[in-house]
Amino acid sequence: MGTTTMMTTAETAVWFRERDNFLILTHRRPDGDTIGCAGALAQGLREYGKTAYILYNPETTPRYAGFIENHLAPDWYQAEHVITIDTASIELFPTNGAEYADSISLCIDHHPSNTLYAESTCLDATSASCGEIIYDILMALTGGISAESAGCLYTALSTDTGCFAFANTTSNTLRVASLLIDAGAPQRELNRLLFRTKTRSRVKIEGLINSGIEFYFDGAAAIAAITLEMMETTGAEEDDVDDIASIPGSIKGVLAGITIREMSSTRDCKVSVRTSPSVSAHAICARFGGGGHPMAGGFSVEKSIAEIKEDLIGALGEFL
Amino acid sequence: MGTTTMMTTAETAVWFRERDNFLILTHRRPDGDTIGCAGALAQGLREYGKTAYILYNPETTPRYAGFIENHLAPDWYQAEHVITIDTASIELFPTNGAEYADSISLCIDHHPSNTLYAESTCLDATSASCGEIIYDILMALTGGISAESAGCLYTALSTDTGCFAFANTTSNTLRVASLLIDAGAPQRELNRLLFRTKTRSRVKIEGLINSGIEFYFDGAAAIAAITLEMMETTGAEEDDVDDIASIPGSIKGVLAGITIREMSSTRDCKVSVRTSPSVSAHAICARFGGGGHPMAGGFSVEKSIAEIKEDLIGALGEFL
Repeated sequence: MGTTTMMTTAETAVWFRERDNFLILTHRRPDGDTIGCAGALAQGLREYGKTAYILYNPETTPRYAGFIENHLAPDWYQAEHVITIDTASIELFPTNGAEYADSISLCIDHHPSNTLYAESTCLDATSASCGEIIYDILMALTGGISAESAGCLYTALSTDTGCFAFANTTSNTLRVASLLIDAGAPQRELNRLLFRTKTRSRVKIEGLINSGIEFYFDGAAAIAAITLEMMETTGAEEDDVDDIASIPGSIKGVLAGITIREMSSTRDCKVSVRTSPSVSAHAICARFGGGGHPMAGGFSVEKSIAEIKEDLIGALGEFL
Repeated sequence: MGTTTMMTTAETAVWFRERDNFLILTHRRPDGDTIGCAGALAQGLREYGKTAYILYNPETTPRYAGFIENHLAPDWYQAEHVITIDTASIELFPTNGAEYADSISLCIDHHPSNTLYAESTCLDATSASCGEIIYDILMALTGGISAESAGCLYTALSTDTGCFAFANTTSNTLRVASLLIDAGAPQRELNRLLFRTKTRSRVKIEGLINSGIEFYFDGAAAIAAITLEMMETTGAEEDDVDDIASIPGSIKGVLAGITIREMSSTRDCKVSVRTSPSVSAHAICARFGGGGHPMAGGFSVEKSIAEIKEDLIGALGEFL
């Protein structure tokens, strides 16, 4: 792995124009930004006459599957250039993408923690979503956005900003979202799908989570837990708990909102941290071997919920 | 009350330029749109050299009080022109505004149900919020928006569209929101205040409401109830249940989401109806003496929650 070449969005458009036969990788536990960007980029490159496919991501949830299903790479496909989207490090590659770890031609990302593992990197850490970067690249490359790409990018922008409510939202996010609607993004249907529709299971598990939130440090820290049992009794699926990490952080007076989720066993937990601007989510997570953005981060750990709570309470004091 | 004169936003700007000494009225149970618009218009008119005050609305909640407190009319103020904002009919005037019912010079509104009670009317029913109309008027009048007005208008746009997630949101809503951020609207603080901060009482009462939702017509209708007792046991205040009417309508498969709320007594209820595009909320509410928009309406009735549920279940069949 050598030194990466940093590129602007205009330079990245030229990069695409001069090449062909692309394979696009999304990240582990794919969200609307990585999936929406992959769909929009594949679609835009094809409309421009290029050959582009997306590597199937085995963790794709039903909510997002439709955005990429027309672009999935067949087994016989041999790409010349492998591209990652919204993927800060090779540890975040999907399991079936590991083989490409040392040969990524281009990484397009907005995470300040990007490890610059690709040959070329188009990174804008001021961007709320990768979607805004892909928008600029496609506009520079093709001069326009099709309705299908617009829908994918609207999904990227809106899901990464909690439908434009999170603190990472900028005037540029809203400006691009407006232009995407004018370009034909079916924003009403997308908003309904992505934000305004809760399953009965979601409503039930939200009730359980809300009831169980515990407060520490005079209410400056709130910790919620999602157990395997809660998932089972409410019938909740992966999509139902998609954005649930934002709940404890949204309570008045809370500076650090933490969600501990049991994954495959009671000693395999994923911890999500959401903070106010005065507290670094990245620093808290780094303490536990994780990372992220200034106000949103996470880490994984092999302990019980009770043990993790104890560790967190012991560590949080110095950050609050 | 004679025939109203319909005016465009450009004509309304001229109307303001040629007059002075305004009093601005907000509507009963004031929301972010009516309050934000009143604050922005008063501020903008003052910056332009006019005298403008807002009539104190006794139902203003703490969440919104700050947006208008610098512009409240003192007792001695004698206005030449009384203006209403976001107020579809004189029945929606605040109690202390009733005396002006027959002498409204100008009404600025976006409700298609506006009864055209004012001498002149600036009505744009395609606008998601009154805020977008006020934006156009202020731009036409003064050519710019101050940071203070921008914050008020951002509040108007964002609260009337559920932070840009509701179906009424248009590309123009997002375009104007983007311009308002560039003009200095403190969008991060506002989003946190308006959308991302829940009190502990809110979290608790949401849990109770979620647990009690009942489904009818094969899940096409969902009915939630908020009793006086629930408000008391959770310590919830008015601001805590502000936008709670959207909960039952956001459940998958629900075409009509209905929230029944006990007000001052157990036989004084307010009913909110939220629907999918295929079902008319206005028509359902009109059946019970209320009204509203195509997908959001309401009515008040002096019956118990159980009686209202029975009436609704009897009536809903023909609408679903």
